[in-house]
Amino acid sequence: MFKVNENYLKLPGSYLFSTIGKKVNAYAAANPDKKIIRLGIGDVTQPLPAAVVEALHKAVDEMADASTFHGYAPDLGYEFLRNAIVENDFRARGCDIRADEIFVSDGAKSDSANIQEIFGLDNKIAVCDPVYPVYVDSNVMAGRTGSYDAVSETWSEVIYMPCTAENGFVPELPEKTPDMIYLCFPNNPTGCTITKDQLQVWVDYANKVGAVIIFDAAYEAYIAQEDVPHSIYECDGARTCAIELRSFSKNAGFTGLRLAYTVVPGDLKAGDVALNGLWARRHGTKYNGAPYIVQRAGEAVYSKEGKQQIREMVGRYMKNAHYILEGLKGAGYEVYGGVNSPYVWMKTPDKMTSWEFFDYLLEKANVVGTPGSGFGPSGEHYFRLTAFGSYENTVEAVERIKGI
Amino acid sequence: MFKVNENYLKLPGSYLFSTIGKKVNAYAAANPDKKIIRLGIGDVTQPLPAAVVEALHKAVDEMADASTFHGYAPDLGYEFLRNAIVENDFRARGCDIRADEIFVSDGAKSDSANIQEIFGLDNKIAVCDPVYPVYVDSNVMAGRTGSYDAVSETWSEVIYMPCTAENGFVPELPEKTPDMIYLCFPNNPTGCTITKDQLQVWVDYANKVGAVIIFDAAYEAYIAQEDVPHSIYECDGARTCAIELRSFSKNAGFTGLRLAYTVVPGDLKAGDVALNGLWARRHGTKYNGAPYIVQRAGEAVYSKEGKQQIREMVGRYMKNAHYILEGLKGAGYEVYGGVNSPYVWMKTPDKMTSWEFFDYLLEKANVVGTPGSGFGPSGEHYFRLTAFGSYENTVEAVERIKGI
Repeated sequence: MFKVNENYLKLPGSYLFSTIGKKVNAYAAANPDKKIIRLGIGDVTQPLPAAVVEALHKAVDEMADASTFHGYAPDLGYEFLRNAIVENDFRARGCDIRADEIFVSDGAKSDSANIQEIFGLDNKIAVCDPVYPVYVDSNVMAGRTGSYDAVSETWSEVIYMPCTAENGFVPELPEKTPDMIYLCFPNNPTGCTITKDQLQVWVDYANKVGAVIIFDAAYEAYIAQEDVPHSIYECDGARTCAIELRSFSKNAGFTGLRLAYTVVPGDLKAGDVALNGLWARRHGTKYNGAPYIVQRAGEAVYSKEGKQQIREMVGRYMKNAHYILEGLKGAGYEVYGGVNSPYVWMKTPDKMTSWEFFDYLLEKANVVGTPGSGFGPSGEHYFRLTAFGSYENTVEAVERIKGI
Repeated sequence: MFKVNENYLKLPGSYLFSTIGKKVNAYAAANPDKKIIRLGIGDVTQPLPAAVVEALHKAVDEMADASTFHGYAPDLGYEFLRNAIVENDFRARGCDIRADEIFVSDGAKSDSANIQEIFGLDNKIAVCDPVYPVYVDSNVMAGRTGSYDAVSETWSEVIYMPCTAENGFVPELPEKTPDMIYLCFPNNPTGCTITKDQLQVWVDYANKVGAVIIFDAAYEAYIAQEDVPHSIYECDGARTCAIELRSFSKNAGFTGLRLAYTVVPGDLKAGDVALNGLWARRHGTKYNGAPYIVQRAGEAVYSKEGKQQIREMVGRYMKNAHYILEGLKGAGYEVYGGVNSPYVWMKTPDKMTSWEFFDYLLEKANVVGTPGSGFGPSGEHYFRLTAFGSYENTVEAVERIKGI
């Protein structure tokens, strides 16, 4: 008789955003007259930039003609895209990254969930707490996290690094030594960042203890302040200890188009074994490339027009973030993030739990946010609002919250 | 110090098609005057059908307008596509499959590599030999295959089921009892099929011994003969033992567009645990949906015009297959497949090994095929040619082969 992967059975409840979806649908069904504003899930709402739309139409036409048709893409991604990535995202910032260290994929969610597969099951992972749930869940599925304690909502073999108002939402070096360290800056969900000097401490630490850093920079485009690194490769020594994950979802509105990439430097090795080769093997065996038309769309993001358009798009979302931040601050709430990030992280009022505040906000203001506790135990008593709505909805949501 | 997944280090050499690519590139570089015809990799060459192109343009325009923009897709795929799949691929054939049993994805390669993740590591897998390398390689990476014997080119914990001319390329029930059985019909690489009665034997066997069948039906659109099943769910009892993998790559030319789906029936359980729920959890955690525009393209495949256009496309490839089959037969070669499949499977002449014949054919005829031994030990002394080239190239390739 076949056996299932029992690690899956250890996963508590269902995925955070599914639960939110169910609650919101139930509320909407029971209250059809209420206009619900969703500032919960991190999904974009602005249409694709014109340069991207033009590139898509052009590429679709190429696919309609045998002489310009494209079948299977190269395993690592098309050179035109990988070259544009290297030039714009790395060389322009003085980072030493080559095209054969770039792996194009269908999304940072897939990459952040899949990357653990090239590591042994006996590695100990460390995660920020709170954190994007996929890092831990994908390691649970692989069997790397030990047993689950329902009271503390933690896994016995995971090193949690609390990020709270007390430490400015930047984790301290852990007491136990981890093998794999997940860092995400600008952070999801706190919206807070790390300075280059602070990140250098982590790079030095990882090189010293022989850990690998998986650096999720999906929100890089929102960085506004000077001393915040756009890439971990701005730090000395990162090529020997860090993998970086990037996405086109949040800078260029590709959440429904699907495009991302992972950087695995050639210098990142365990003894003689280069992780670049292992990830290439995984890519070649378990994945078959991002669509040609989407890779052309990605290339257009780096065109002169594309860059201008995504700057404007990011600017519009950041106007929302600013409105949320200042509005809630003015109303007496304790709020964080929202400066280098589309996420505003607020402390729940009156010691409400995150889910209590979720229900409260849904019922009293018809506004959907994301309960901080869904991102980890230290997220309890916090709440995430996102700047991805329309300006009108954002203003209305903030006014409603101020009114309750 | 972090540790790598040592299972990766057990994988011999590199992926079959990468090796072919390198050999062909080296030959082309050394012989720039030669016109090489590639009948090796199973990639399509005809442009996308007009109905698909139209749907793509329309969907791109929707993504260009905030009021019709689509962000993250639903985890399982859009209902419009899942409903079209259920209606056309299953109900029209009398198969009892529901929309919530369909999981839309970016490709059958990903699905066939990822599906093993929901099973325990202590399951024993059985594969046809020869077979598409991804089934075994993905299980090697997971650590389910034991040790590799370089002489026999087999894994100690894999049950190989030889498919050769002697058994008509249909495997016999194995002596050792497997937990997971990979079947692919019409078969890649042999191009041969299984009748409905023969497949029913496998379904009955799987239900009896408690095994799960992973049925890869990526080449279903090429079936021409009446008694060949299009879906395993045409067999009685398949809902309690079978997962089916389908693809838009080979019927509609989506190799560069990326779309596929997996069927996991609600009745397929290990004790109380439904595999449908496990796969849903994997999809929700490690994947973020196929692009909206590509799902709309998939929907167009099921439109009246789309169906007509893909029938014509498949017809053109099958004209090639027929030409290869008859041409090589006429020249005295022993050939198989090519009737319900775009693949022709030939016996190498003069007891050449598959790779010897690969080199011979590349050098003497400048034709690229795929060495049968790359698909498993019983593929040795066989060679795969594909019908995905243009008619002109196919004719020229066959004439060249006849001339050597």
